[in-house]
Amino acid sequence: MTLQEQIQHKINNKTKPHDALGRLEEVALQIALIQETLTPDLVKPHIIVFAASHGIANEGVSAYPSEVTFQMVLNFLNGGAAINVFTRQNGIELTLVDAGVDHDFEPNEKLIDAKINHGTKSFLNQAAMSVVECQRAMEKGKEIVENIAKTGCNVIGFGEMGIGNTSSAAVIMSKILQIPLEDCVGKGTGVNPDQYQNKINILTESIINHSEISNDPIEVLQTFGGFEIAMMCSAFLVAAEEKMVLMVDGFIASAAFLCAFKINPKVKDFAVFCHQSEEKGHAYLLKYLEVKPLLSLDMRLGEGTGCAVAYPLLKSAVAFFNEMASFESAGVSDK
Amino acid sequence: MTLQEQIQHKINNKTKPHDALGRLEEVALQIALIQETLTPDLVKPHIIVFAASHGIANEGVSAYPSEVTFQMVLNFLNGGAAINVFTRQNGIELTLVDAGVDHDFEPNEKLIDAKINHGTKSFLNQAAMSVVECQRAMEKGKEIVENIAKTGCNVIGFGEMGIGNTSSAAVIMSKILQIPLEDCVGKGTGVNPDQYQNKINILTESIINHSEISNDPIEVLQTFGGFEIAMMCSAFLVAAEEKMVLMVDGFIASAAFLCAFKINPKVKDFAVFCHQSEEKGHAYLLKYLEVKPLLSLDMRLGEGTGCAVAYPLLKSAVAFFNEMASFESAGVSDK
Repeated sequence: MTLQEQIQHKINNKTKPHDALGRLEEVALQIALIQETLTPDLVKPHIIVFAASHGIANEGVSAYPSEVTFQMVLNFLNGGAAINVFTRQNGIELTLVDAGVDHDFEPNEKLIDAKINHGTKSFLNQAAMSVVECQRAMEKGKEIVENIAKTGCNVIGFGEMGIGNTSSAAVIMSKILQIPLEDCVGKGTGVNPDQYQNKINILTESIINHSEISNDPIEVLQTFGGFEIAMMCSAFLVAAEEKMVLMVDGFIASAAFLCAFKINPKVKDFAVFCHQSEEKGHAYLLKYLEVKPLLSLDMRLGEGTGCAVAYPLLKSAVAFFNEMASFESAGVSDK
Repeated sequence: MTLQEQIQHKINNKTKPHDALGRLEEVALQIALIQETLTPDLVKPHIIVFAASHGIANEGVSAYPSEVTFQMVLNFLNGGAAINVFTRQNGIELTLVDAGVDHDFEPNEKLIDAKINHGTKSFLNQAAMSVVECQRAMEKGKEIVENIAKTGCNVIGFGEMGIGNTSSAAVIMSKILQIPLEDCVGKGTGVNPDQYQNKINILTESIINHSEISNDPIEVLQTFGGFEIAMMCSAFLVAAEEKMVLMVDGFIASAAFLCAFKINPKVKDFAVFCHQSEEKGHAYLLKYLEVKPLLSLDMRLGEGTGCAVAYPLLKSAVAFFNEMASFESAGVSDK
């Protein structure tokens, strides 16, 4: 039997009707395949939150002012944000990264300084970042994940904070998939109808102003990206190389994942999609990737919160696979 | 401000966009209202699995032989079933109840002896239980929950084991809601198309043979119920009286909940629906009750497994409500 057949055989012989654990069986199979073992284990679960400021936020595309990005980083450092609460609850290590926030933080051992610049440029009229900045962001993402891999961590999720980043993600998605912007733009943190129309207008104009850009993921990231999105893209790629289980969060994380997928489609084998966001473009993006997230809780917060609240389900999948009795061992009659 | 307004105000002032935690915000509001407090807490979570044998199983309505019911109880006692794994994982106390299994168990401190009889009668030609048996089953459910309430537990879920009990639940649902049997009958543990047709035929004949029965929930339970379903029905009612948070599992548990709801509609205020089962009738039943479960993982195992894997989401709801910073306390700018 191949390893996959052995894993499936083990699942099918647990004391339950065939398929009766549904999605948990799929996740168990996937994790066992990633780890190439009949006794998988989730070790040192970790979530990294990448934060960055966005020049495009100054064009009025968000319901919140740009300063909220650095204020929220302080909130993360103080343990008061949703992602702090959920990672504490579920025993997940949390790492915070300044990917390019427009603020000078005091040195803090909880915050990795990977600042590429004090925020991106507004991509309305110019590229969000230079070629070198994009390269540096991707190198930093790689370096950070490699360091975490050295701790023994084998399951990792990425979150983000960056006022304006649903705009960035929507344009990235629209450009890479070559689909209308309207299918990709949602309410973000909660714009009203007038602000929504302004968001559409600004982003439409931005795409027109960069009409020479191809759908190459790196070029798209450099032109429309955020530093946190570029870092997440390389973080996904490196984590897959390290054979980690990847937890994919909501819309922004999925846009970064899309870039990674376009660079190396194999990354999908390692990815567990955790939560379907309420943000409009996410359903389309998930359909394109042919994946179905574990949760659909109407959340739209980012920060990696979808990963953090879904993590116990990954643990459930591994636990039933390792711990449940078989029909034979329990002396239960099969069909 | 009313308590509800105070709770909603506290939720809205957390450092997140309005509504951004979606269903978790609804659960937090519900739990705070149940506990009538701004600082809710989930104490000593508990799942009770009620097991019983079904006479109807001898008519060939299930994919598995009836003896699997007692074999699975032994599996529960040995810690090898899915519900053992998931309750261990999530720190949930597990209580096992012999509600009427057709087997004489050795005395075991882990198994509550609430045996009403050695299984129900086949309801094809006679009532599944006598009036007195149904009363005793409901009294036992009450007594068991009252004893658990005395331990300080304030969040409880009910699971079941009983080969044949999707047949019982389907007929109960069909009779109480006065809808066609075909909308209520699913594949159960996994019958093939021929077995499915036999299941439909047997259950149709059963309903015809008891055409004098009204849609009164107690009368329906007595005629078509299982001992475990009757116990779960009263367990829901008593747990709501005790102001516990009720975790409702899949199809069988929801059929028992439907009976409880018909007896006292207030029980719904206390109920968190945990998982939408793959079993056909469940979607209809949930729609009738106007509820949307937290999870939809294509599971169809029973045992309370939906409650056990959803429980971390209830903890997440309470945790964000108690632990997240407010815009004011964190110094984050609101819109």
